[in-house]
Amino acid sequence: MIVLLSRQGHIPITVKLCELETPCLIANRTRVEQNARRMDALARQRRVRLRPHMKTAKSAEIGAIALAGRTPRVTIATADEAWHFLEAGVMDIRWAVALTRNKHAVCKRLLAAGATLSVIVADAQSAQDLVDSFAGSPDRIDVLIEIDCGEHRTGVTPEGPGLLDIAGVLGGAPNVNLRGVLTHGGHSYDAADVAQVKDIAAAERDAVIESAQRIEASGIACPERSIGSTPTVVHGSDLEGITEIRPGVYIFGDLFQMQLDACALDDIAVSVLATIISVDRARNRLVIDAGGLALSKDRSTAASRTDYGYGLVVRADGSALPGMPMVQVVHQEHGAVEGAGPLLLDELKVGDQVRVLPNHACMTAAPYDCYHVVAEGSELVETRWAKTRGW
Amino acid sequence: MIVLLSRQGHIPITVKLCELETPCLIANRTRVEQNARRMDALARQRRVRLRPHMKTAKSAEIGAIALAGRTPRVTIATADEAWHFLEAGVMDIRWAVALTRNKHAVCKRLLAAGATLSVIVADAQSAQDLVDSFAGSPDRIDVLIEIDCGEHRTGVTPEGPGLLDIAGVLGGAPNVNLRGVLTHGGHSYDAADVAQVKDIAAAERDAVIESAQRIEASGIACPERSIGSTPTVVHGSDLEGITEIRPGVYIFGDLFQMQLDACALDDIAVSVLATIISVDRARNRLVIDAGGLALSKDRSTAASRTDYGYGLVVRADGSALPGMPMVQVVHQEHGAVEGAGPLLLDELKVGDQVRVLPNHACMTAAPYDCYHVVAEGSELVETRWAKTRGW
Repeated sequence: MIVLLSRQGHIPITVKLCELETPCLIANRTRVEQNARRMDALARQRRVRLRPHMKTAKSAEIGAIALAGRTPRVTIATADEAWHFLEAGVMDIRWAVALTRNKHAVCKRLLAAGATLSVIVADAQSAQDLVDSFAGSPDRIDVLIEIDCGEHRTGVTPEGPGLLDIAGVLGGAPNVNLRGVLTHGGHSYDAADVAQVKDIAAAERDAVIESAQRIEASGIACPERSIGSTPTVVHGSDLEGITEIRPGVYIFGDLFQMQLDACALDDIAVSVLATIISVDRARNRLVIDAGGLALSKDRSTAASRTDYGYGLVVRADGSALPGMPMVQVVHQEHGAVEGAGPLLLDELKVGDQVRVLPNHACMTAAPYDCYHVVAEGSELVETRWAKTRGW
Repeated sequence: MIVLLSRQGHIPITVKLCELETPCLIANRTRVEQNARRMDALARQRRVRLRPHMKTAKSAEIGAIALAGRTPRVTIATADEAWHFLEAGVMDIRWAVALTRNKHAVCKRLLAAGATLSVIVADAQSAQDLVDSFAGSPDRIDVLIEIDCGEHRTGVTPEGPGLLDIAGVLGGAPNVNLRGVLTHGGHSYDAADVAQVKDIAAAERDAVIESAQRIEASGIACPERSIGSTPTVVHGSDLEGITEIRPGVYIFGDLFQMQLDACALDDIAVSVLATIISVDRARNRLVIDAGGLALSKDRSTAASRTDYGYGLVVRADGSALPGMPMVQVVHQEHGAVEGAGPLLLDELKVGDQVRVLPNHACMTAAPYDCYHVVAEGSELVETRWAKTRGW
């Protein structure tokens, strides 16, 4: 604890953004709550369970906002996230990455620690490995079959032989409880426009419903039909037959989601606070202390309507700067901001702070250990939200 | 501690790679030691001090290998790295990112905790802020002036007015000790061939020597002349007049450095261990549980002789696979491996492990909390080396 004190020094009761060491991660509480309420209302209106994907925020405190008033249920992508939520008292955890045999041991530790854990499998051998591993186990694990609804990442197709092969392995096996089918319409990220997102949303829904019907027709129960992806959930119009949605990035929004019309610029709830460490008037360029690690090297907006480089630079108070300055070059801990007109260089000096809105919130937030939390329009840090990171 | 135990479970005395949860980071101790010895010999032969840049490994245990037999001196890029090395007993710490006023407080905490801290400034106002901040301080801080030797990131040119302006502010100021000049020939990363790297190395050397001579001609002492960048240090032929080198990535090497002839493929000492979670024979594709976070989204080899996608896939024992399979698409926690011929799909099954060699070791290693350490040719994890991460 001495080390912790010497690292952090005296922590005043109220801290302003300008007193923070940079780079650091800022969460706008007002917007997180608005984004959470909007998705909660959508789930209620469509009569589906909401199981938010916490790979985006990696924070039990944000999970609590996302799940306000609901039975806590989360989706996660890493063992580390599972432990983080379990330690925060969220027992119902769904690990939505195809499970392989080297992860059975950690699943058993999570179950022994009290989790109601569900996992997914995407091939018959992994299903058989799971059955064999749990046959003599004191624990019982829930499992869903992963469906490929067109993303072609992992999962079996609704129509191919793999689906019933897996269901046959899992159905009735001791200590392994086949709960249903699950898919992720992640190819919605590559959609050219909202109409195409809507088509993918329909295909995503149809894929799990068709898969569940085939399994049930073979005499095996398949009660859950789970879909994912923020764009397909936001733009999908009909969730009839779906039991659960697992959106993640909606809680923050980002420049990429904005261009899929899945959020507005003023919904973006996470940003990186950085300090200007160089002003190069001759080259019309600023350098900030946030580079490829602090912003991530995600370039997902490169193929969007507007390419935001490595992120859009705004004032420390969140207001827009003239000329849409963007981070155009990143080194490990340096970011070069260009598109900054002479006016901007008169306003911004070395030592001043700016914020960078992320291309892809999940990638940008990942390496930080906490969020510094502000309300809309405030420069006062009202609290920190702990988050986890790594695997 | 109960949490820690429940997370890790029983830790056997000897662990094989195949027993590790993935993704995780593997360090080849044999190669780390070879890379360290090679740079140590180069520094001795050129009669310069070696102050390795620990932004690459972020690990005091790797720092100890890099500095074997030397007085411990490190270069760092973040406050977090400074604390990590200070807590490990390395007192002489050089923070090689242009310092601004919001970092004075952490500098004072590091000094109070015992560090011999040196920082760099790149403009006269930041120099004045430092002087003002330390005027009444109980602590004394060393400072170097950052020189732009052609990278055009941060720093003043050797010939412009900024250099003597800064030296004038710092020279003789109380509690601020002007130690010298420092530059980073980072534009060597954009060099087309070794001849161009050699030209940049010569320009890097000349820039600090010319700068130091101008400062000394103005009557201010300037004893240190520090240069950086692994490629310029490896390929530079004449370090006459230079006092210190600060290479970083040499300790691991990577696919990008290999293409600058700064290391060989068999020197690459860090890799990500991943598990195959899907085999798609129809699309001739594997999916592994290492994606954009586990590998980073660094695409630095895109402009190199060979574009390795998001990394080169080799067997779990480190041996080459036929057909040069590479990670071609990354999602947050998934990586799609292509260039994998039918032969490969016969060898590799779901649940098997592979290793991914990084494009850029600094970016790939950053988010992990430890290295699992193996000797050359061994699949036995002989120890873990702790590392730090974040800011």
